[in-house]
Amino acid sequence: MVNVGIAGASGYTGVELLRLLLRHPEVQLTVLTSETYQGRTVSEVFPSLSGLVDAPFVPLESEALDRCDVLFLALPHTTAMRQVPRFLKAGRRVIDLSADYRLNDPAAYEQWYRFRHEHPELLKEAVYGLPELHRDRIREAKLVANPGCYPTSIVLALAPLLSTDWGDADSIIADCKSGVSGAGRKTALPTQFAECNESVSAYGLTTHRHTPEIEQEVSALAGRDVRLSFSPHLMPMTRGMLSTIYVNLQKEVPPDTLAEHYRAHYQNERFVRVLPPGASANTHFVKYSNYCDLGLAIDPRTRRVILTSAIDNLVKGASGQAVQNMNLMLGLDEATALEAPGLFP
Amino acid sequence: MVNVGIAGASGYTGVELLRLLLRHPEVQLTVLTSETYQGRTVSEVFPSLSGLVDAPFVPLESEALDRCDVLFLALPHTTAMRQVPRFLKAGRRVIDLSADYRLNDPAAYEQWYRFRHEHPELLKEAVYGLPELHRDRIREAKLVANPGCYPTSIVLALAPLLSTDWGDADSIIADCKSGVSGAGRKTALPTQFAECNESVSAYGLTTHRHTPEIEQEVSALAGRDVRLSFSPHLMPMTRGMLSTIYVNLQKEVPPDTLAEHYRAHYQNERFVRVLPPGASANTHFVKYSNYCDLGLAIDPRTRRVILTSAIDNLVKGASGQAVQNMNLMLGLDEATALEAPGLFP
Amino acid sequence: MVNVGIAGASGYTGVELLRLLLRHPEVQLTVLTSETYQGRTVSEVFPSLSGLVDAPFVPLESEALDRCDVLFLALPHTTAMRQVPRFLKAGRRVIDLSADYRLNDPAAYEQWYRFRHEHPELLKEAVYGLPELHRDRIREAKLVANPGCYPTSIVLALAPLLSTDWGDADSIIADCKSGVSGAGRKTALPTQFAECNESVSAYGLTTHRHTPEIEQEVSALAGRDVRLSFSPHLMPMTRGMLSTIYVNLQKEVPPDTLAEHYRAHYQNERFVRVLPPGASANTHFVKYSNYCDLGLAIDPRTRRVILTSAIDNLVKGASGQAVQNMNLMLGLDEATALEAPGLFP
Amino acid sequence: MVNVGIAGASGYTGVELLRLLLRHPEVQLTVLTSETYQGRTVSEVFPSLSGLVDAPFVPLESEALDRCDVLFLALPHTTAMRQVPRFLKAGRRVIDLSADYRLNDPAAYEQWYRFRHEHPELLKEAVYGLPELHRDRIREAKLVANPGCYPTSIVLALAPLLSTDWGDADSIIADCKSGVSGAGRKTALPTQFAECNESVSAYGLTTHRHTPEIEQEVSALAGRDVRLSFSPHLMPMTRGMLSTIYVNLQKEVPPDTLAEHYRAHYQNERFVRVLPPGASANTHFVKYSNYCDLGLAIDPRTRRVILTSAIDNLVKGASGQAVQNMNLMLGLDEATALEAPGLFP
Repeated sequence: MVNVGIAGASGYTGVELLRLLLRHPEVQLTVLTSETYQGRTVSEVFPSLSGLVDAPFVPLESEALDRCDVLFLALPHTTAMRQVPRFLKAGRRVIDLSADYRLNDPAAYEQWYRFRHEHPELLKEAVYGLPELHRDRIREAKLVANPGCYPTSIVLALAPLLSTDWGDADSIIADCKSGVSGAGRKTALPTQFAECNESVSAYGLTTHRHTPEIEQEVSALAGRDVRLSFSPHLMPMTRGMLSTIYVNLQKEVPPDTLAEHYRAHYQNERFVRVLPPGASANTHFVKYSNYCDLGLAIDPRTRRVILTSAIDNLVKGASGQAVQNMNLMLGLDEATALEAPGLFP
Repeated sequence: MVNVGIAGASGYTGVELLRLLLRHPEVQLTVLTSETYQGRTVSEVFPSLSGLVDAPFVPLESEALDRCDVLFLALPHTTAMRQVPRFLKAGRRVIDLSADYRLNDPAAYEQWYRFRHEHPELLKEAVYGLPELHRDRIREAKLVANPGCYPTSIVLALAPLLSTDWGDADSIIADCKSGVSGAGRKTALPTQFAECNESVSAYGLTTHRHTPEIEQEVSALAGRDVRLSFSPHLMPMTRGMLSTIYVNLQKEVPPDTLAEHYRAHYQNERFVRVLPPGASANTHFVKYSNYCDLGLAIDPRTRRVILTSAIDNLVKGASGQAVQNMNLMLGLDEATALEAPGLFP
Repeated sequence: MVNVGIAGASGYTGVELLRLLLRHPEVQLTVLTSETYQGRTVSEVFPSLSGLVDAPFVPLESEALDRCDVLFLALPHTTAMRQVPRFLKAGRRVIDLSADYRLNDPAAYEQWYRFRHEHPELLKEAVYGLPELHRDRIREAKLVANPGCYPTSIVLALAPLLSTDWGDADSIIADCKSGVSGAGRKTALPTQFAECNESVSAYGLTTHRHTPEIEQEVSALAGRDVRLSFSPHLMPMTRGMLSTIYVNLQKEVPPDTLAEHYRAHYQNERFVRVLPPGASANTHFVKYSNYCDLGLAIDPRTRRVILTSAIDNLVKGASGQAVQNMNLMLGLDEATALEAPGLFP
Repeated sequence: MVNVGIAGASGYTGVELLRLLLRHPEVQLTVLTSETYQGRTVSEVFPSLSGLVDAPFVPLESEALDRCDVLFLALPHTTAMRQVPRFLKAGRRVIDLSADYRLNDPAAYEQWYRFRHEHPELLKEAVYGLPELHRDRIREAKLVANPGCYPTSIVLALAPLLSTDWGDADSIIADCKSGVSGAGRKTALPTQFAECNESVSAYGLTTHRHTPEIEQEVSALAGRDVRLSFSPHLMPMTRGMLSTIYVNLQKEVPPDTLAEHYRAHYQNERFVRVLPPGASANTHFVKYSNYCDLGLAIDPRTRRVILTSAIDNLVKGASGQAVQNMNLMLGLDEATALEAPGLFP
């Protein structure tokens, strides 16, 4: 059994890690931290887990944390940045769900997060935890930077296309729709029920912090620097993320060719499903699961590819992917504890 | 491995059986029927299950169905009534999710369902599938009548109280709130999104067909004929059911005594959780799980007990309970394939 | 034109007063206060009103407030308590939407609000602002205590019944379902979208502060002290309130007789609609309107009346009723600015 | 008073016309047709209007319809096509909410609707009812083709930009999000609550029938044939539509210049509001109103304009705009009966 600790276990990604890891046959949940709820038990804070886990939340400085084999950090950014060295020094393996170690370039971090990175040397060591792109490096990593939800949905949709010369990478536009849980478990006016229910709006247009992370991965896939438009929107639902992605075609591609290419590209992937021709991705079919569903459409009139990509923002977009990364790091079957289908309805 | 068939697998209780049984280690899903979708595959109809099950839907008359060891009937009432003898004759074990075999008394069936029961002799053989009340009989049963969602939530809440003389059984009022999935997967105007979203209403006041089933079980617990008020309401959410139940106290009962009695009553039950003092049940914490959460309150001013009981209408209120019954019938651990916690958020 | 001020105009009842009064032909909105948003304009805070009102929010101490003819107080309780004398002294007429002046008995206030009333002498002067019960006194009042949303829906449903000896007032149980906007426009964890969406729960069982207000009015109608059970529930919707009310019958009452009695009782009321036999009230049909819809059912099996009462919690349950009260106080047509139908869908 | 008839008054656009026209000071609602509900009264079908209108629904062939001064057709397409000549022949003025007379080119109609237009000669006479573009022609029109909801939101957002040479019309991409009421009041599986709640998906990618209508108006504005990408999505909310529109810039445009241009363009429009710099449009602030809110953003990194445009799909996107058109046709103040602000929350 592997001893696992979760730092910041009382947020939405934290409780999602809890529910996934509780049923992981190789994992023992040893330490759970929460500054807000320290001293209280998990089942008090999350009655959904009552009877399943009785551990109390402890503070982040708890030394027991340092003795865990694997650490998940579900902490605010900058806090995660400062905690990572502590665990690496202790020889532990770390999966950081924050954004702090996702960017290779400390200048990009400073530009978008308006904060100078305090451990730029570790950025080289960190592996971007998108298994479908970096599986081998994740297996060996000490520090995995777990991707954001938007980047996961966008990059998985684009990867097969960017392995061809069919699309114009400079034309990429990603219009993304996210459930409210993506904003985390903190009180804020815009995420109060009566504010965001029966409401659809864009936010962070042209300035959202997931942009450099998306561009880093897309650039690597394209083999050159790419800038793209990324527009997040808030949807009146708890979970789910749909990215609709537009790319201009540079040459004629028959729909069947596109579909075959996508299916071939992902044929060995357990968690990416290429939908049948004509089908668009729907968040409803991936809810609470680790799947990413991809829909393909070509508009011959405007010579554009329109990709739709659906994930559960808290599973493949966060905690499920983190568990997938842990499985890889531990040499386990990648899908352990992640086999559940999407829950419909 | 047990060969299992589901008749009527393309409704909401059907797909819920599918997703639960897919991960059941002792079960092989052999035959799935659907009149609407016969010839199409499961993953076409439910993309959430894509990659997990490839079977096609077949018609109800398919002979393969008769060769299954266990049959789940997720059929409309009267259809189920007529199918049950077919499978019993073939020596199969049947779990009927319809209402057709829940009432012991064929006259009550005729009164509430306005249809003469065609197999009244089988009503004696059928066991009402509420494991917390009838576990031993379920183990031996050939035919289990799986309870309705409202009765499950109400009867589990009342059972401990009715084992005492504290409450007045003639004063029972159950005010129940159900998610829309309880109406099934058929198109109807009242369950169209724009009709029931942002809307709360009562329906079937004084006439809902779950009434005789609730009264049958409550009467058995009380040891005498009981009539009660049962008022279902439609809530703008997909899943979940909350019953708020009022009972006049006949004697003074300290809250702690009530709580201890409930905890003792359910101490060996895996799927009933008695909440801590002061807590009310919330459907959010049992979503997608087989749990029933019970909250206890006493109002000393009006000398009433107010019970709150939360289940997922499609799990403990239907398909989860059906799997629990199957586990009992097969001598398996009762919780097999049902261990998942409530999914929050 | 009447000069009107709103103290606390940036909450949900405040913005609802704004949108109603903006179209009131006899009203000029002169002063709007908000501590949170002082210095900012209405259209910055509520883009829905952009282009319709340009006034800035000012602080509560603003002297301009004292010069308004009529004041609406949409302030937290205790704050309202302390502001009322200021305006009465200045000879202004006050409609207080808080709970501070609703209870005749200062001891009841202290018991339920855990705060000693600082102006108990004004409680005698205050008129409980339910026009259907106290229209004549409202017309003359200097201080109207605008009712709570739960009491409005419950008392309007019970008033006709309590004018007879048909029901047993000691048996009254009100099971109430409210939209989330009832909790006001402040950030709190339980009203965050991801917490209360897809969730139904009871709250404040046996202890909700609207209880004494309901009992005060019901007791007055019954002609004796009445205690009743009142159970509020939170619904995953923004607006609307449904109360389902149970009363034991003391004598046999034919449904038609009940219906005729209700229709006769409310025949001259503009905002109470008695639904046709068999119909239950539905919040969907009163959304954004000042109507209260009443549904009547009798259960002959249990000898109970089951009333359903639907209002919009922010209109008839708060700001609409406040405007109705103002119209009465000013000798205007009671329905001025309140004629809009329920907005469906 | 103008006698008005509504053909197809029992759908969502029908009932929305009803509630708007009920309060129109110059209109008398004379005839309401519904095939589904003929013989039943409005208040039976729409309890929200109970006490406000008592008329019965009559069949479409009712001769009284021919005697109305103005007719709103809220009928399915092809049905509307065949009814229009009947009323024009009788000398009536017609506002057709279907798509049948929106396209100038009968070939485009046949291509997208897969139906040969039976009255192509009337297409020349019909005026596309977007007042902000065609106000003068609407005033004189006998037949107004009321625009679709998507085209309204998109064309209003693009019009100011297309009056300059700043953007590349060939690069236009409109990613649109619609509430479920846009699908109308008919039962269908995809719009059942449990199917589309907690779900976001694209539909009709590359094939939606509003495409030619958008391109017709955009081409006219651009002064040349334009093809664009239009991607509709279904959102889990009842009302509201947000279009996010991407256009490549051909020259550098400072954000302030863009904002000033938009404000100047729409300075005399009552129902178009250009939001302050930095603000994105939010459907929440236009719900139940006739407003179109426009948000402007420029992404200097990718040299794109990103426009956000929010309307209520049933008001400015259908029935409100139809009333606006009627006001123009009758020489009334354009905003009569349409002054209500967005209803928040």
